[in-house]
Parts: sequence; C-alpha cells; structure tokens
Amino acid sequence: MDILAALRTELGDDAVVTGDAMGPWCHDWTGGYTSAPLAVVRPRDTVGVSAVMRAAQASGTAVVPISGNTGLNGGASTQGGLLLSLDRMKTIRAIDATARSAVVDAGVILSQMHDAAAAHDLIFPLTFGARGSAMIGGVLSTNAGGSNVRRYGNTRDLVLGIEAVLPNGRVMDLMGHLHKDNTGLNLKHLMIGAEGTLGIITAAVLRLFPKPRAYATAMVALNDLGPALDLLNRVQDASRGAVEAFEFMPDTYIDGHLAIKPDARPPFDRRYPVNILIELGATAAQDTTPLADGTVPITNLLEDILGQMIADGTVLDAHVVASEAQRRDMWARREAAGEIGFRKRPLVDTDVAVGLTDVDAFLRNVRSGLLALDPDATDWAVSHLGDGNVHYVAYPSRDDPALIHAIRAMVDAVTADLNGSFSAEHGIGLSKRISMARHKDPAALDAMRAIKAALDPHGIMNPGKMLPDA
Amino acid sequence: MDILAALRTELGDDAVVTGDAMGPWCHDWTGGYTSAPLAVVRPRDTVGVSAVMRAAQASGTAVVPISGNTGLNGGASTQGGLLLSLDRMKTIRAIDATARSAVVDAGVILSQMHDAAAAHDLIFPLTFGARGSAMIGGVLSTNAGGSNVRRYGNTRDLVLGIEAVLPNGRVMDLMGHLHKDNTGLNLKHLMIGAEGTLGIITAAVLRLFPKPRAYATAMVALNDLGPALDLLNRVQDASRGAVEAFEFMPDTYIDGHLAIKPDARPPFDRRYPVNILIELGATAAQDTTPLADGTVPITNLLEDILGQMIADGTVLDAHVVASEAQRRDMWARREAAGEIGFRKRPLVDTDVAVGLTDVDAFLRNVRSGLLALDPDATDWAVSHLGDGNVHYVAYPSRDDPALIHAIRAMVDAVTADLNGSFSAEHGIGLSKRISMARHKDPAALDAMRAIKAALDPHGIMNPGKMLPDA
Repeated sequence: MDILAALRTELGDDAVVTGDAMGPWCHDWTGGYTSAPLAVVRPRDTVGVSAVMRAAQASGTAVVPISGNTGLNGGASTQGGLLLSLDRMKTIRAIDATARSAVVDAGVILSQMHDAAAAHDLIFPLTFGARGSAMIGGVLSTNAGGSNVRRYGNTRDLVLGIEAVLPNGRVMDLMGHLHKDNTGLNLKHLMIGAEGTLGIITAAVLRLFPKPRAYATAMVALNDLGPALDLLNRVQDASRGAVEAFEFMPDTYIDGHLAIKPDARPPFDRRYPVNILIELGATAAQDTTPLADGTVPITNLLEDILGQMIADGTVLDAHVVASEAQRRDMWARREAAGEIGFRKRPLVDTDVAVGLTDVDAFLRNVRSGLLALDPDATDWAVSHLGDGNVHYVAYPSRDDPALIHAIRAMVDAVTADLNGSFSAEHGIGLSKRISMARHKDPAALDAMRAIKAALDPHGIMNPGKMLPDA
Repeated sequence: MDILAALRTELGDDAVVTGDAMGPWCHDWTGGYTSAPLAVVRPRDTVGVSAVMRAAQASGTAVVPISGNTGLNGGASTQGGLLLSLDRMKTIRAIDATARSAVVDAGVILSQMHDAAAAHDLIFPLTFGARGSAMIGGVLSTNAGGSNVRRYGNTRDLVLGIEAVLPNGRVMDLMGHLHKDNTGLNLKHLMIGAEGTLGIITAAVLRLFPKPRAYATAMVALNDLGPALDLLNRVQDASRGAVEAFEFMPDTYIDGHLAIKPDARPPFDRRYPVNILIELGATAAQDTTPLADGTVPITNLLEDILGQMIADGTVLDAHVVASEAQRRDMWARREAAGEIGFRKRPLVDTDVAVGLTDVDAFLRNVRSGLLALDPDATDWAVSHLGDGNVHYVAYPSRDDPALIHAIRAMVDAVTADLNGSFSAEHGIGLSKRISMARHKDPAALDAMRAIKAALDPHGIMNPGKMLPDA
C-alpha cells in the first residue's frame, strides 16, 4: 500500500488532498515560491500528526509543515514531499486568566488568539500584518517578531511550553506552564525557530498579558534619524517603559503606500524624510483614568514630550491620534508593508538587524552599494526601529540572477560590517541559506548539522531548508 | 607524553594543579560532594580552553567545568576527570552603557559584574546569596535563578550572546549583541542550562538594565498564604510592575535564622506563620523624586497598600524600611537561606516550582507526606513566591539512605501531582538525575541523549551528569 493510501486509511479520506485541490497550499503570497507536493495532509490532532510522521519515516518521504503559509523565505515549500497542514488543529484548549496563559493547538490563527485573549481583558502581544492568516505553529517555528518585540519580546519569550512530534513520530510533551523549570537541555527553545527541520510543533502554552486600558499613538516627522533614539529614550523613561511600538517609515515608504492606496491620506501635509509611528500602552489606573479636563495622562505625557521637541526644533511635526479610527488608520499604513514592498518586481527583500545607532549607517551604505551595482535601481525600507530591525528592499532595474545575487551579497556584507544579523525575524527558509553559509559561525553550523542528523537521521523533516550544504 | 605533561607544556606549569593544591576545588560548601580529579586545569583564555578540550578528546579524558563551585547538586564534581576551572578568565571586556550590554569572560564573579554595572548607573539584575563566589560561566551553565526572576527573567533572558568551546575544541562564536536574530537553531539557549554537558561557555554578552533610583522594601506578616497573591497583584498593578522581589519565609525559616544568628532581630515582635519580603524598584523621576514632605512616591505607594490591607485585617503587621542599613538587614536574613537550610544533617534539599496558587498545597502535602514516612522528621522552606519556586528541606530523624530516597520520591510525586517541576533553578547535576528518570518526558530524554551523543561523541563533557542512564 502506498503512503497516501495508508494515510487515507488511518486519517480518513478528507485528510489527504491531492491534485488541483492542493492549489491553495502551492503558492505563497510573495509569488516567489511554488510547491509541487505529493499530497497535502491535514491531520485532525496530534495523534494524526504522529501517524503521518511514522508513515513518512518508514517510506523515506519528506514532510514540510505548513500553517498559514505567510512566511517570506520559502520555508514551507516542497517539490515532491508531503505538505503537512496544521489548519484543522485550531482549538484554543484553555485560557487561564489568573495565571495569564493559554493552551492552544498549532493551527490557531494569530488573530483568533488575539480575540480569545481580549475576551478575558488580556492580550497575546505578538502581532504583525499577516495576523489574519498566520498560525501559532508557524509563528513558533519561525520565532516570529513583529511590532512590539521591544516591550514583550520575540515569540520565544512568549511561550511557556510546547508539544512537538519528532521525526520518528514520538510526541514530546513539554507543555509546562511554569516560569522556572531547569530540567535538562532546553528543547523548547531548540524547537522554536527550527523552521520545522527537527519536528512539528503541535501545541503550545502561551503567555498572556494585561490588556492596556489606554493607548497613546502618534505619527512623528523628523529630518533624519538622529533625534529618533532620543525621542524613544525620553518617552521610555517618562512612561516607565510603556513604548509598545516604534516604527520607522522613510519617505519612500509613504510614497509606496500612496502608490497602492491612492485614496489614503498621507501622514503629514508635507513630505518628510523620517516618519515614526510611536505607540504607548498603559494599564495602571493613574495613567489611564481621564482627568477632570477629559484628557488621559498617558496621552498627555506623549504630547508633552513631543511639544518640547517641536519647540526645540528636533521634531518637525507630530499628530497624536484622537480616536480609535485614527489609530487604526495609522496602523493600516504600517501593516501594508508587505503589500507595498512586494508591489514591484524584480525585488531583493531583506530582514536585517543592526545596533539601534547603526540603522542610519546601514541604510546609507546599502543605498550606495546598490547604486554602485545598478545605477538605475531603487530601494525602499521599513523598520522596527526600537529593535534595530530593518526590512530593506532593493528593486534592481533588470531581472538578472547574477545582479540579484550580487545585491544580496552586498546587503549581507554591509550588515556583517556593522556586526548585524542577516535574518532578524523572518528566519532562513530557502532564500537565506546562502547567507547562512557566508556569515554564520562555521562551528555553529556544524553543531546544527550534528543536531539535525541526531534528531532526524533519515533527513525527512523539511529537507533542504535553513541549513546550507556542508 | 601524558595529558598533564602536554597541558603543562601548552598552558604553562602554573595552569595545571595537582595533589594537595587541588584541595579548594575538591569540596563543595554543602559538604555533599567531593572530587578526586586527575588535575585542576586553569587556562588563561579561550585558546587555552580549546587546547584542554583537544587534549582531553584525544586521550578520552573526562572534563568537568567548574567556576565558583556554588552549585547544590554536585554538577561540578568528578572522580578521575579534569576539573577545568574558569577562575583565571575574569576580565570584563567591555561595557556599553548606551546599548546596555556587557561583554565578559566566564570567570567573572557575579558580584564583580554587579559592581562594574553600578559604575555606569546600571544593574545586571541576577542575584542570589552566593553572588560573591559564583561566576558567570556557572551562572549561565545552570541558567541560575534568584530573587528577581519575576521582573527580569532567568539567566537565559539576560544573555544576548555566548562564546563556547565544543568537546572537539572548536570555538563557537555566538557573541551577538542583537535583540532579534533568527539565524538557525538556537544554540545559545541549548548551551545555557546544559550544565557543561555539551561544551564550555567561555564568554558572554549580558543585558544590563537601568539602576533603580529608589527601592521600597518591606517585611509583611500574614497568617497564611491566602492574601499573599492579592498583595502581590495590588502592588504590581499600582506600581506598573515594579516588584523586584517577593520572598516568602515561614515561621520555621525565622526560627532557623535565629538559631544560626542568635543576635539577629526577628522581623516582628511576634512570631507569624508567613513573613514576606517585598521590594519595589523604581527608575522614573515621578516615582523616585522626594515630595515636599520628604517622602518618596514609590514608598508611599507601598505604605498605602499595606495600610489598607492592615486596616481590613488581611495583613497582620508590616515594616517598611527607612534606611539602606535596614534594607541590608532584611536581605541578609533572606540570603542566609543556604546557611540555614544546610545547618542540620541529614537533610533532603529540593528546588521545586509549582503554580503560584499551589505553593500552599505543596507545603501542606509534603509535610504530611514527610510525617507519614518519618514521624520524627522536621522541615523548613523558603520560597521565591512570585515565581512559585520553593526550596523545601526535610530533616529526617535518621541517616537512612532508603528513607532519604523515599522522601525525595515523595516530594517529586507531590510536585508532579501539582504539574510542577522537580528542578526550578538549581538544575540536575548528580542529585536530580533520579528525578529526571522518573518525571521528565521520555521522548524529550531520548532527544537530549541524541543531542549529547551528536555534540560529544566521546562522552567526555561532564559525563554522568544531568542525563539519567537510558
């Protein structure tokens, strides 16, 4: 009996999708990666995932886990392997509002998690533009970042426990809910961010946080990045670390947004080189209870600092939002980044992290490097400035693989010169393997290969991803 | 040439200690573990550590890293292996006050790190009683906890990057200083808490934090643990999460302290069942700037809440400290825990974590379990209550190995019943391997063994520690 017949028998006919019905899983939204899977398998539960892995190991079939398929590096693509979709495992098993934790399946969609937490006056803080599609399993497997890492941490900081199915089909139960647990090698952190190369995360215990009772949100215009860190530090100190987001959009970003949303209002009447979205979230009553004049302390705090910096000339203009609708508009502009960045082809998309004070140097150096390689090229960027994380996109003037490779190598080299990382939050997948080979410590790469071979001796888990060839 | 002669040639005579001169490394302060090493090797730098590992691998010699030798589970003991001491690698290489990070060698003593950070008006927050001896390498290798994990996290949360020497002598450079870096399997988190079974951490990039400009510290007396979490939550909410420590000392703790320090003042005139040390740390000017009447807002906040809870009868008594000397006295009482706990023999010491609301049930259940096994036994406890971390010590009435094993198994079983962890912050070493075998997920244990075999194929790194036999 072939593996698909065996899986149909074990999991039910509806769990094994073949032919044209696989369409939705075979293309990612970037258009950069297409799959030709043997089948898409949709187990209903962890036992089903375990059955798929046992069958795959017995037959030497590659298995590529896929959840929301919102990754940017081709990590969930396959030619000939099984796509194991977690989309039917979407139960939020429990929320403990007192302990501030949630037990969830890997197929829970991020925005579903947000809604469930909100019903308890809590938040699961991780958020990014693809939250309506991205699922918890993919979020954990890529250690996704987003717009409020500075305050709440990366995905791995938000996870208390996981359940994972290993390549041999065994289920590893690490569903602890404790904040202190020193019992052997930390396999939780090893599986998080492993991009499905060591096994399949099937469930997790997530940390929840008190929902801010009030936000203070503003767009701020600057001439250059110089005063940006001063603004961040002043607001952080005065608000006791309440900054949730500090997002930098250069003029090219605003142009790109207006190009795809011609009806959108620009953030300011004039075009400024540096536009920053800053948001504070407050939970304490003394920060959020309206004063006699109707104003809210946390908003007053932000307005006061911006007013001082406008008075001394370091801030050129600022809009503090006055309504939830205005706040949503500001965030819609920021969260259109994927759509804006991928609106033109060909493109070289990157995801680097550098020191907070090096973002400006990074942007200047990559632009001059780009123009040296291709004088007709253009570029674009958006940045989680509070983390030093920059998504820089180059648009070469021609679709030339050698040129595209040269641009990527140039960005990697500029990043390495600044002691930065060539992958801040999107992971490696297929597209960054060449950067891994160039810039990751060789002893570390060999240690990763040894761990991969130890846990996946038949090489069936998401083969050809993350690790460059030896 | 034997390995010691080779190491003398390579590292210098003074780097290889043998005979009686090894004395200081051969006994831990608990008195529970003695070593009979082949030699103590004291390399001067990472190159030297690498040379030791190459020589050890070539000769099949066991290597056990040791730094401050303050562990409680025998993790740094050896019979016949090399003790590799990091004590000569004690340079604080750099402190970046703007980026709030420090680059340090593994042999830097924790209190040395505290002093160096303080010189920049910053803190390295991790702290515990043994801070005057414990070194960074051991702190990282055991993922040490301590008294302010609730606010700042465990050791692993305070580490941006590490350098480690693998069993084959290769140096793995993961000395990143970035807050976002998704470049392959997370080897940093794998090495942290690995207790020297996968390699030797030789250096680290540590996170620093703003030094609180004011502390508010109090001892609080309660009849039982019931109102304790309410107190914690009220103070956390009002202070915007400023609680740095929330330490529970039962009456038996106070008795034990007076037994070893007869001249010490008890915390209250009366003996109360529950004594809690609560400390807030504030950095913002509006919390720390004295008011016109000379009082400090963060202290007023704590006094107000305690006053309300005394008025409604939930808190029986409270002392808020009025001077740094008083604060030091309160902390000296708490930090005498090791000395108090180990003052009597025989003893069974434990380090469990349970849910915050389960601490009371844990203490009741282990006491009744203890008395069922040994009606003449006594017990004692201290707890990082804000983390659910309890150090419970049983004193059996006779030195009977079977009884001691039965008590340990009973504590493990009570902990497991509450979905707790049998090792919250002290790690496994030698003494908790039996608990690992009993209670750690079997698939996880096998995965750990596979990783250990992959990275240390000759089994020379701290053999016989952490992992139970298969």
